[in-house]
Amino acid sequence: MSDTAYTPPEVWDPETVSGGKFANINRPTAGAREEKALPTGEHDFQLYSLATPNGVKVTVMFEELLEAGYSDAEYDAFTINIGDGEQFGSGFVDLNPNSKIPALLDRSGPEPVRVFESGAILLHLAEKFGAFLPTDHTRAEVLSWLFWQMGSGPNIGGGFGHFYNYAPEKYEYPINRYAMEVKRLFDVADQRLAKSEYLGGAEYSIADIATWPWLAPFVKGVIYGEARKFLSIDEYEHVARWANQIGERPAAKRGRIVNRTWGDEDTQLRERHSAADFEGKKL
Amino acid sequence: MSDTAYTPPEVWDPETVSGGKFANINRPTAGAREEKALPTGEHDFQLYSLATPNGVKVTVMFEELLEAGYSDAEYDAFTINIGDGEQFGSGFVDLNPNSKIPALLDRSGPEPVRVFESGAILLHLAEKFGAFLPTDHTRAEVLSWLFWQMGSGPNIGGGFGHFYNYAPEKYEYPINRYAMEVKRLFDVADQRLAKSEYLGGAEYSIADIATWPWLAPFVKGVIYGEARKFLSIDEYEHVARWANQIGERPAAKRGRIVNRTWGDEDTQLRERHSAADFEGKKL
Repeated sequence: MSDTAYTPPEVWDPETVSGGKFANINRPTAGAREEKALPTGEHDFQLYSLATPNGVKVTVMFEELLEAGYSDAEYDAFTINIGDGEQFGSGFVDLNPNSKIPALLDRSGPEPVRVFESGAILLHLAEKFGAFLPTDHTRAEVLSWLFWQMGSGPNIGGGFGHFYNYAPEKYEYPINRYAMEVKRLFDVADQRLAKSEYLGGAEYSIADIATWPWLAPFVKGVIYGEARKFLSIDEYEHVARWANQIGERPAAKRGRIVNRTWGDEDTQLRERHSAADFEGKKL
Repeated sequence: MSDTAYTPPEVWDPETVSGGKFANINRPTAGAREEKALPTGEHDFQLYSLATPNGVKVTVMFEELLEAGYSDAEYDAFTINIGDGEQFGSGFVDLNPNSKIPALLDRSGPEPVRVFESGAILLHLAEKFGAFLPTDHTRAEVLSWLFWQMGSGPNIGGGFGHFYNYAPEKYEYPINRYAMEVKRLFDVADQRLAKSEYLGGAEYSIADIATWPWLAPFVKGVIYGEARKFLSIDEYEHVARWANQIGERPAAKRGRIVNRTWGDEDTQLRERHSAADFEGKKL
């Protein structure tokens, strides 16, 4: 581990930066890079997303609402290929100036509203339908765990996942830093789930819907190469119990394949417009 | 930049990790490290915090509520010295199993509730008092920017701040990675604030209260050493307009010194129990 020859300049110059899997995507500026309208469907809810953990949160939420009988939660889901830079098209940037999936257009109210950031979308839908978020004294606990996930995600994905799996070279210090933090976060969840059926308490809530897509792939060993082994994820038996339990929910099985563009063809659903779209898919 | 001699082991072993300013604090496990009760005051709201950006969010929120005439928002604020590991005392862990400041005990309802994560605390208080969060169609925009801040903070603090300022050595790749992201985030905010007085729209909201403590210190050049110059923060004139505007609010002036343990003595207020505690302080 030696990088000490490096002394940062007084003023950082992005032109000096090269390399990395996402080098063609990352820039130090925001805003649209090309004019490009978004497709739209017929339902009130228009979702633009990809089946990454942050994307899966929202498709699981919609499928849970539909599963629970809220038929007004029908939605059209379109795939945004972030590797191709579709998040920088003008239509998408109008919905989310931060150019990240997922983004939602909600046309169910008196005037259309945009919602961006997965946590905001979950909260918006939970409030709209009165579901998966208690209104009594247990609400604060659910909100706490929801925000805990939102603050944790960047350390798991952009931190650990990037340095362990995506960065052009292996750097020891950042890998150690984020391995430490991801294990700590798993332990936080594990200790909680040892005492509580769900993160927010006795009831399944948007705190679980937000967290499951980030932790379950580690339990199943399907994220960041050998991360499950590297981080000894098998130690967290209560997280595994919870992840497997949620994984059996029909809505979770459906939601995780919406906007999926990898894996076997029958585990991909690039666009979702109705329940019939899941026919023939392997759930 | 060369760290390529490093090959991660199959299974990560925390015992092999050394160094770093926070090495005595960071562990891969959660939970209390010692029995230690928290002090309590007389008000309904008991806050345990430190005047870092995440802490300042909540003290500004309380001071804004009081400034707006919500006298039920009186609070006792106690300092948690994270450098001394006070976040691992059993009383604090009972309030926040994630061992991060800020944490709140709310005794105003029929039974006491804990709230952790700064964003959850802001939302909890906004809902309780019906303030700084609209209930009409503009609510989704405020929630989107609130969650945008929550997802951004880790990249600004634990990412850029750590690698540029706190890490034991300067590593070029992570510094470039997070400099890119922080500049992008500033540009997202700058483009928004060019068109909108506040992040969530025409009205000051919890989205601003959450974001101001993270961006304003860059504008003022009081965070992470030479970060203001390194990142050319002067480019973001609309962020500066907004940061300075909020900085003039009496509640922001008070909130930022609560639980502060550094700087001149007259800019520190280690415990706050009433408005009188600010007397003689330099606001």
